[in-house]
Amino acid sequence: MSKKPSLYTCLSPALLHLYDITDTVVVVIDVLRATSTIATALYNGARQIIPVDSVERCIQYGREIDCITAGERDGQIAPGLQYGNSSFEYPREFVQGRTLVLTTTNGTKLLHMALNRGAREIITGAFLNLSAVCDHLVAQKKNVILGCAGWKDRVNLEDTLFAGAVVSRIREHFHVNCDASGMARNLYELAQDDLFGFMQHNEASHYHRLMGFGLERDIRHCLTPDLANILPYYQDARLVPFAG
Amino acid sequence: MSKKPSLYTCLSPALLHLYDITDTVVVVIDVLRATSTIATALYNGARQIIPVDSVERCIQYGREIDCITAGERDGQIAPGLQYGNSSFEYPREFVQGRTLVLTTTNGTKLLHMALNRGAREIITGAFLNLSAVCDHLVAQKKNVILGCAGWKDRVNLEDTLFAGAVVSRIREHFHVNCDASGMARNLYELAQDDLFGFMQHNEASHYHRLMGFGLERDIRHCLTPDLANILPYYQDARLVPFAG
Repeated sequence: MSKKPSLYTCLSPALLHLYDITDTVVVVIDVLRATSTIATALYNGARQIIPVDSVERCIQYGREIDCITAGERDGQIAPGLQYGNSSFEYPREFVQGRTLVLTTTNGTKLLHMALNRGAREIITGAFLNLSAVCDHLVAQKKNVILGCAGWKDRVNLEDTLFAGAVVSRIREHFHVNCDASGMARNLYELAQDDLFGFMQHNEASHYHRLMGFGLERDIRHCLTPDLANILPYYQDARLVPFAG
Repeated sequence: MSKKPSLYTCLSPALLHLYDITDTVVVVIDVLRATSTIATALYNGARQIIPVDSVERCIQYGREIDCITAGERDGQIAPGLQYGNSSFEYPREFVQGRTLVLTTTNGTKLLHMALNRGAREIITGAFLNLSAVCDHLVAQKKNVILGCAGWKDRVNLEDTLFAGAVVSRIREHFHVNCDASGMARNLYELAQDDLFGFMQHNEASHYHRLMGFGLERDIRHCLTPDLANILPYYQDARLVPFAG
């Protein structure tokens, strides 16, 4: 019998150093809303997404190449950029064949941390591409870290729930000796019949922040499985659909 | 109407820097088993507990003053020390009136971190003294951080469940804008009818480690509310029963 690969859940970027990620597939999770936007744009035909870690660098790209510059700071479109972090801003007729340069508060940061720490492979996950993520992880048979982007290094509910959804679906294929994975799974299984209601009735700070911006439709969309079921794969400093 | 104080849950010592703790009561939580042992020893009449951060320092105290030296490393009695980290080692006939010098893997470390970061007040919490902790926090009307000691900076289930028990009981008295608190509360409310069974059937790495040492009776004891319902309070480099 072959040994199962390991699966860990890292609830905050500030805990990533506790895990050896060198031979590992890292799933970057930023449900509200970076990795939801990434899945949507690629699903709708964007050629590639370049994640960058500052607004300045995003603006610079906009001057140098033909691209859409987008990003948020504290949940709103960053000054100097054209677009924000809502899936609804990236329909097929707008993004098909184009390059999106994206900077976000938490997701981009975690992606670069995973890169710098030598992850074998980086993909991004959100409810919108839940099945694609799960199918890939099961097929790869490599060690996995589910990396929650959180909010300024604090743990957040929505990323934890997504990690829990993945654990719930694929744990039979992995060796899971990780309390955070069990916690995430239990929370997801408790919430799965009404993810929006669970966010609403619990302490979910970023949910409440976005609701304050009038983004209920956006949040509901981001909590719906498989509406943009594609696998964003990090390669040569950009995210592209996984080609197998 | 007066503003309610805030309540946050910090799931790992490696996240403590994210919180301003200067005007805050920090509850140090290390259910398996440092803070359970602390509650038990004080409940059974120990005069004081001196938490130290190394085995060497613990041994040194043993040479210099009349005390019981105790502590664990990786869940077992540390070489050179007399006693371990089981509540059952500290009955009244043994500890009454005595000084216990204690070093543990995770709990002592978090306590010193809270101290160095300028916490206003430090107390310790475990299921064994759940009510004493809750009553104190409600009475104090100060900002609260529930600090989980975890396991080598990783999140663990038992400390999270205890934090959730506290949140569940006292949240009406606080302003809780903290996803980790909501997660902990939901997990506790899911588990509360059978905490031992919940630990058993979930990924709970330290539970399984201690079970491997034959410590089921110890774990069951540590998951029982209010068996040693006293409030350990940090003052002048030692823990003593809170005097009001």
